[in-house]
Amino acid sequence: MSDLPYRVINESSDGYQTIDAVISPIGQLNILSKVEVAKLLDSSQSGLYKLFRNCSLAVLNTGNDLDDGKELLERYKDFDISIVQEERGIKLSVKGAPAEAFVDNKMIRGISEHLFTVLRDVIYTHDEINGNPKFNLEASEGITDAVFHMLRNAGMLQPGLDPNLVVCWGGHSISRNEYDYTKEVGYALGLRGLDICTGCGPGAMKGPMKGATIGHAKQRINNGRYIGITEPGIIAAEAPNPIVNQLAIMPDIEKRLEAFVRLGHGIIVFPGGAGTTEEILYILGILLHPDNQQIPFPLVFTGPENSAEYFTRVDKFIADTLGPEAQSHYKIIINDPAAVAREMKAGIQKVREFRKYSDDAYYFNWQLRISHDLQQPFIPTHDNMRNLELHKNQPVNQLAANLRRAFSGIVAGNVKEDGICAIEKHGHFELHGDPEIMHPVDELLESFAQQNRMKLPGRTYIPCYKVIK
Amino acid sequence: MSDLPYRVINESSDGYQTIDAVISPIGQLNILSKVEVAKLLDSSQSGLYKLFRNCSLAVLNTGNDLDDGKELLERYKDFDISIVQEERGIKLSVKGAPAEAFVDNKMIRGISEHLFTVLRDVIYTHDEINGNPKFNLEASEGITDAVFHMLRNAGMLQPGLDPNLVVCWGGHSISRNEYDYTKEVGYALGLRGLDICTGCGPGAMKGPMKGATIGHAKQRINNGRYIGITEPGIIAAEAPNPIVNQLAIMPDIEKRLEAFVRLGHGIIVFPGGAGTTEEILYILGILLHPDNQQIPFPLVFTGPENSAEYFTRVDKFIADTLGPEAQSHYKIIINDPAAVAREMKAGIQKVREFRKYSDDAYYFNWQLRISHDLQQPFIPTHDNMRNLELHKNQPVNQLAANLRRAFSGIVAGNVKEDGICAIEKHGHFELHGDPEIMHPVDELLESFAQQNRMKLPGRTYIPCYKVIK
Amino acid sequence: MSDLPYRVINESSDGYQTIDAVISPIGQLNILSKVEVAKLLDSSQSGLYKLFRNCSLAVLNTGNDLDDGKELLERYKDFDISIVQEERGIKLSVKGAPAEAFVDNKMIRGISEHLFTVLRDVIYTHDEINGNPKFNLEASEGITDAVFHMLRNAGMLQPGLDPNLVVCWGGHSISRNEYDYTKEVGYALGLRGLDICTGCGPGAMKGPMKGATIGHAKQRINNGRYIGITEPGIIAAEAPNPIVNQLAIMPDIEKRLEAFVRLGHGIIVFPGGAGTTEEILYILGILLHPDNQQIPFPLVFTGPENSAEYFTRVDKFIADTLGPEAQSHYKIIINDPAAVAREMKAGIQKVREFRKYSDDAYYFNWQLRISHDLQQPFIPTHDNMRNLELHKNQPVNQLAANLRRAFSGIVAGNVKEDGICAIEKHGHFELHGDPEIMHPVDELLESFAQQNRMKLPGRTYIPCYKVIK
Amino acid sequence: MSDLPYRVINESSDGYQTIDAVISPIGQLNILSKVEVAKLLDSSQSGLYKLFRNCSLAVLNTGNDLDDGKELLERYKDFDISIVQEERGIKLSVKGAPAEAFVDNKMIRGISEHLFTVLRDVIYTHDEINGNPKFNLEASEGITDAVFHMLRNAGMLQPGLDPNLVVCWGGHSISRNEYDYTKEVGYALGLRGLDICTGCGPGAMKGPMKGATIGHAKQRINNGRYIGITEPGIIAAEAPNPIVNQLAIMPDIEKRLEAFVRLGHGIIVFPGGAGTTEEILYILGILLHPDNQQIPFPLVFTGPENSAEYFTRVDKFIADTLGPEAQSHYKIIINDPAAVAREMKAGIQKVREFRKYSDDAYYFNWQLRISHDLQQPFIPTHDNMRNLELHKNQPVNQLAANLRRAFSGIVAGNVKEDGICAIEKHGHFELHGDPEIMHPVDELLESFAQQNRMKLPGRTYIPCYKVIK
Repeated sequence: MSDLPYRVINESSDGYQTIDAVISPIGQLNILSKVEVAKLLDSSQSGLYKLFRNCSLAVLNTGNDLDDGKELLERYKDFDISIVQEERGIKLSVKGAPAEAFVDNKMIRGISEHLFTVLRDVIYTHDEINGNPKFNLEASEGITDAVFHMLRNAGMLQPGLDPNLVVCWGGHSISRNEYDYTKEVGYALGLRGLDICTGCGPGAMKGPMKGATIGHAKQRINNGRYIGITEPGIIAAEAPNPIVNQLAIMPDIEKRLEAFVRLGHGIIVFPGGAGTTEEILYILGILLHPDNQQIPFPLVFTGPENSAEYFTRVDKFIADTLGPEAQSHYKIIINDPAAVAREMKAGIQKVREFRKYSDDAYYFNWQLRISHDLQQPFIPTHDNMRNLELHKNQPVNQLAANLRRAFSGIVAGNVKEDGICAIEKHGHFELHGDPEIMHPVDELLESFAQQNRMKLPGRTYIPCYKVIK
Repeated sequence: MSDLPYRVINESSDGYQTIDAVISPIGQLNILSKVEVAKLLDSSQSGLYKLFRNCSLAVLNTGNDLDDGKELLERYKDFDISIVQEERGIKLSVKGAPAEAFVDNKMIRGISEHLFTVLRDVIYTHDEINGNPKFNLEASEGITDAVFHMLRNAGMLQPGLDPNLVVCWGGHSISRNEYDYTKEVGYALGLRGLDICTGCGPGAMKGPMKGATIGHAKQRINNGRYIGITEPGIIAAEAPNPIVNQLAIMPDIEKRLEAFVRLGHGIIVFPGGAGTTEEILYILGILLHPDNQQIPFPLVFTGPENSAEYFTRVDKFIADTLGPEAQSHYKIIINDPAAVAREMKAGIQKVREFRKYSDDAYYFNWQLRISHDLQQPFIPTHDNMRNLELHKNQPVNQLAANLRRAFSGIVAGNVKEDGICAIEKHGHFELHGDPEIMHPVDELLESFAQQNRMKLPGRTYIPCYKVIK
Repeated sequence: MSDLPYRVINESSDGYQTIDAVISPIGQLNILSKVEVAKLLDSSQSGLYKLFRNCSLAVLNTGNDLDDGKELLERYKDFDISIVQEERGIKLSVKGAPAEAFVDNKMIRGISEHLFTVLRDVIYTHDEINGNPKFNLEASEGITDAVFHMLRNAGMLQPGLDPNLVVCWGGHSISRNEYDYTKEVGYALGLRGLDICTGCGPGAMKGPMKGATIGHAKQRINNGRYIGITEPGIIAAEAPNPIVNQLAIMPDIEKRLEAFVRLGHGIIVFPGGAGTTEEILYILGILLHPDNQQIPFPLVFTGPENSAEYFTRVDKFIADTLGPEAQSHYKIIINDPAAVAREMKAGIQKVREFRKYSDDAYYFNWQLRISHDLQQPFIPTHDNMRNLELHKNQPVNQLAANLRRAFSGIVAGNVKEDGICAIEKHGHFELHGDPEIMHPVDELLESFAQQNRMKLPGRTYIPCYKVIK
Repeated sequence: MSDLPYRVINESSDGYQTIDAVISPIGQLNILSKVEVAKLLDSSQSGLYKLFRNCSLAVLNTGNDLDDGKELLERYKDFDISIVQEERGIKLSVKGAPAEAFVDNKMIRGISEHLFTVLRDVIYTHDEINGNPKFNLEASEGITDAVFHMLRNAGMLQPGLDPNLVVCWGGHSISRNEYDYTKEVGYALGLRGLDICTGCGPGAMKGPMKGATIGHAKQRINNGRYIGITEPGIIAAEAPNPIVNQLAIMPDIEKRLEAFVRLGHGIIVFPGGAGTTEEILYILGILLHPDNQQIPFPLVFTGPENSAEYFTRVDKFIADTLGPEAQSHYKIIINDPAAVAREMKAGIQKVREFRKYSDDAYYFNWQLRISHDLQQPFIPTHDNMRNLELHKNQPVNQLAANLRRAFSGIVAGNVKEDGICAIEKHGHFELHGDPEIMHPVDELLESFAQQNRMKLPGRTYIPCYKVIK
């Protein structure tokens, strides 16, 4: 292993150790034109440098417990990053970087790779996607095309590989017991040659990768893929752990979700909080679309013995609101990592056959129809919430999509700063919802509160909405 | 070696064997979006499919003696190529392809790689360069930026490599003796670890690559680069030989010339015809620019013993027109392949030191100033020719640039269809040229005619211009 | 990942699942001559087949808790292994193999590699070492030469690598807390680019490898070495875990110990039982040899906070018996994985400088003098024990060697079947030992008993020897 | 490409440039024990150092026209080679080495690999084969076993590869026209993914490799094998050309011939002299053995148009002496490289099927029976010659073997120093040969003389034997 060239100055600000260093992109190709470098260094440039700097800082902060983006930025307010052109390519110069990203004053290789990924994705999205008339980001096809281009540019579309990518969803702050279980599932997947894709960050996003690493080592698989897909809004709270060896930073939440679904060949859901429930509603909203009826897509909910309650509640909620058809799309497996891995392996085998039969790519799920309402961001204003259609008198996939939005708004009203302010100012959200739908929602959220799966700073759970007849 | 999947039908049209086959991109990543495939298959699309088809046919025609693009298209008028989406990626389906591209009904791997390169470059230029407001193709910096992006997309900018790329220029229809000499020079370069870049095609473009292949084999270099840079206008006449393992199709002649100069670390010129002289004037026009005075750039003219006359003439022409400063930029070495290779190796060592000192990239010559008049195409109309400034009362680099244009026009008037017609219609080109410049031009062309270096179908050389006082 | 060819029959004998399969050596070269195959298949051959079969079974038994070789052989008494010659090389056919070696009826790749290693080493030792007049196994140089040849044949001597191999010793049945600590140390070593060598098996032999695997993954080191060195006598009790990617089976305990010391660039000792103390005495016996005075060899004893007592005792024992010079050869670090890793890194840097200075190989410690009494096996008969010289009136390295023997005998008398029988039959071992040496021995063993580090089936520790004046 | 460490002193002795240098084994593993190094450096050691030195000098002499071993040794009488132990492994120090092995004072990589191969094979043969009681070199099986071990140690037995190795035989001093033809055949073989094995040296041994190198480059095969098999007696006259990337030095001519036949999957014979005829008789002697009747083995004789006469004569000779069965084992193809390559490809496909069917290794032809009389060297004394059985009253394969011997003796009597002396001293060889056999022999040799295929210094061909009734 050749050493990274570096120069180090240890500093301390508010008690946090920081390091200055110059980072080389070993084994990775980052070649920038003069114009690209100039844009990134132009501080007058509309936010591009700021985006680059903040994402970089988030990447460097991995391993810290800190999951509050705002606090992160304040703690390392002197952090600075810039591009250095050298004869063998470009390098990155960081100042005031968190010391945890370094071992004996050398940056951990995985983290330095992530830094260069930030550079790549920030530039690509800015240069080639935004403002390129080729992409119509208002149309469903245009959004999918943009997602395709971003993933291709990130090197994630690899033809020639058999389908083997398992997306793992679940909470980032789960119990030790649940975390150990995600490692065991990852190990069982790795032993079977399956690769892992998560949303980066700790908890259910990290455990499967650690487990798969050991499984792959035992199977002598030394090109295992540990894919992380994130977006600027959450990267600070859920920094990619350095095991991630392919990282993509999508521009927003919806494109990130679409990336999971187009790239992965199956999904495992571990226990989580309200965010995980949103993800479940997202994938069910897709799988319930009539156009997708024939398309195989393995979906498993799993956790250790003492997480069984969680999935019982989620399952009941789905039964009550979306009905048995929705339930038919997933399988719940409690406390059996090998069974989960076998289920995914078998399910992905069906995906393979289907794609082969229909001549669809293995590396991108072109055929899955994702309706436009799942691709467009939902802003939970009082008006938007009031206008939601929450009744059973509509196709079940549309109900799932609307529920996802309602859920998104309710969560915001409960725990997100913007949402809480809005409630304080304008009063409860008013929802035109059928009781047979709104009651289960209420029940589910209450069970999450009881299971300590929601951040509720010292207060009991009170719904932030009322139902209008 | 895994076999290419294929289905084969032998056909015959006008006595030429052709083959139908489906070609897989083994070991190469070609992943296209639905939109990209649709564009290529849309026959109503403004010429894109036609460009793709004709370049593909040219690539398949390698090894044939045929160097007439028009005849090629007529011979294989039933040739068709289309894209097939399959589960592991895309494939190409060809119909009526020249049988010479196949060995025992399997396409030669090198040629199939070239086919996918055509696909890549045609799409990239169309999608990302043309019509992308980011590139200002009217400005010098914008053109250079576009050249950079095209080479980067072609995977030719490889950071981490030491400078070692030698560009070889020279005629495509040279004598056997001269051809053998280019092989010997290539062998001497390969033994010294140098890689080769040429304009594709036979003759002086192929010999150095063959020689270097043997040299690399003896030195156990199995990642030698044999780079070919071409453009749609000449690819039919000078198809890339299959040794070329990195191919780029630039959109026009000027961007191709700029690609040579930005990518290569030195240039060797073998004997050639008028085209080679144009190339010499192009590089001298650059090296004589005052801004480039400090920039090392090894340039060697070389040939076997009995080609000495050629370079004596060229050297005299340069002395007479551009003077000793121009002569100081190159070295003439006759019949000594090892000396040529040592000269390039030493010159490139200086390039390396200079780039290291000035923190410039090894993989792209950012610092070299190429004036806008060398980047813009010159159309040799009677008006354009009449307005050329051919006198010594101007900076010598401008004179070189203008001479290149004059030369381009004179050559066209002598041998190119368009030029000959124009002369027939409008009479001789009228040039406001100083005798001390025009006389050497005349002399040089006459010597080429005597040496059989110009295609002159059965007639003596008569200048197509007259000098106006 | 290409599938292993296999045919599977699930059986059950005494409730244990077994599998029949044919195993291919993917990515590994095992080419046998007809003569070699014949010897292995010849059941009349003096024990060669039996040795091959039993080692193979041990390798397959990894992951089981079972650490009793005798029970293992009884449990899988129908186990059979044979060689199959096929057109692409040889394969192994196993019958009645433990099902735990398989995942979904395919053998774990790491385990199948180990099977072929057994084949390689059994044949090599038999064919090339034993009975080859070239090796004088009675002389010190001859033994070292044989160790060198066996390690070279196992592919473990890799020129061109910088010194980075850390040998980890310690108990195979340690507490959960101590096990987690060995993982953390391994992780800290892996992050610093160090590789791991252990004696195979669970506990302190497995933890560092698992930790280093994660550390290497984060540093993008995908050629990390996890070396296991074992011998036929203990392989059944301490089967190599499948992370081990380079395995050697040495013919006996002494050659195994020599292999550790010649191959590794430093040693870490984790808590263990009496066996670990023997290993400590072995390395001290070497480092105290006058000829080795100038040779750097980093040696660190480490454990978590609540294992501090263990090393306090060991350190006191060494101080009391061998004195401060012996103490100067190691460093004790409690509960600080990063400090341990930094200490090893710095120590190995000194090893590197020393070898460079003295032109000694990085991959084999030629210079270290190992005296013949440490190379020859010690059989703890009553006579041999009685004749041990256990007094301070001898060079300290000889005392260490004799103490190792005494220790070996005492351990055997306490816990090994042979030893216990001998004591029952012939009474206590009689030792001519100085009290100032025998008293510390007694203290140390008692402390081990109190710390539950000795297998004492439900009885208090009683010394098996008495001191004769 | 990293530079080889070296120190250079140019010398001159009798006008020949020489170089002193230290050579590192980059990318190759040469690890020697102290004992092995000592043996090689011990000048009192029975000829081992001398063998090592002389073979090394031969390897360094590649590219020279000099094909006289004796003259070589005299020209570079100061040449010396020794082993240097360094921290990363061993190096070789050469003094007074031929300058042609270097490019700009650095040794050509291919040649330095060959030097380390000499070291490997000389040590292996001496240490592991000679004097190892395991190998019974008096028995047919023992000889084959030794050949197997030597090829395995040379890394030439590669399981997992499909059969694709074509052995090319033919003269080392053929005409330019014939040499160019061997290149074309090699090119056609390389284009079809076939690898090349020859006896090293120039002419028909070098041409096919050069051609295949280009063919492989076009097919993007960068792991093509160019195998050279030689022995100490001829290595000086036929030094391996540096394209050879796998080299083995067998201990004598017969083991070398057996290596060709066990390793290769088919044989092409180009024009040659008497030596080539001996090779033809050797392979026919094997193929005519009744035990080999079912074993496919493609054998093609080929040359350019104006070499047709050569094969007409050879074919007639075989018809006259061995008859139509012998003729059925080969095919003569004149002036059609593609047809030759297709024939070999098809023949090797049959070899593959046969080995697959009979579970025989692809990498070593175990099944072919080579009778002991073809494995034992023949010394052409007058007695041995007189006792040869040269009549048709014996199995045809025995006749072929005896003819090979007669041929060997006749050739020696004509052109080899020992043989000529023996004739001068003892008179003509006396042969008890049937006229119907001896007459064709006479005719064939005369035709070779006419075609200038025998070294006959300025005299006409006179048989050195007479037939006794």
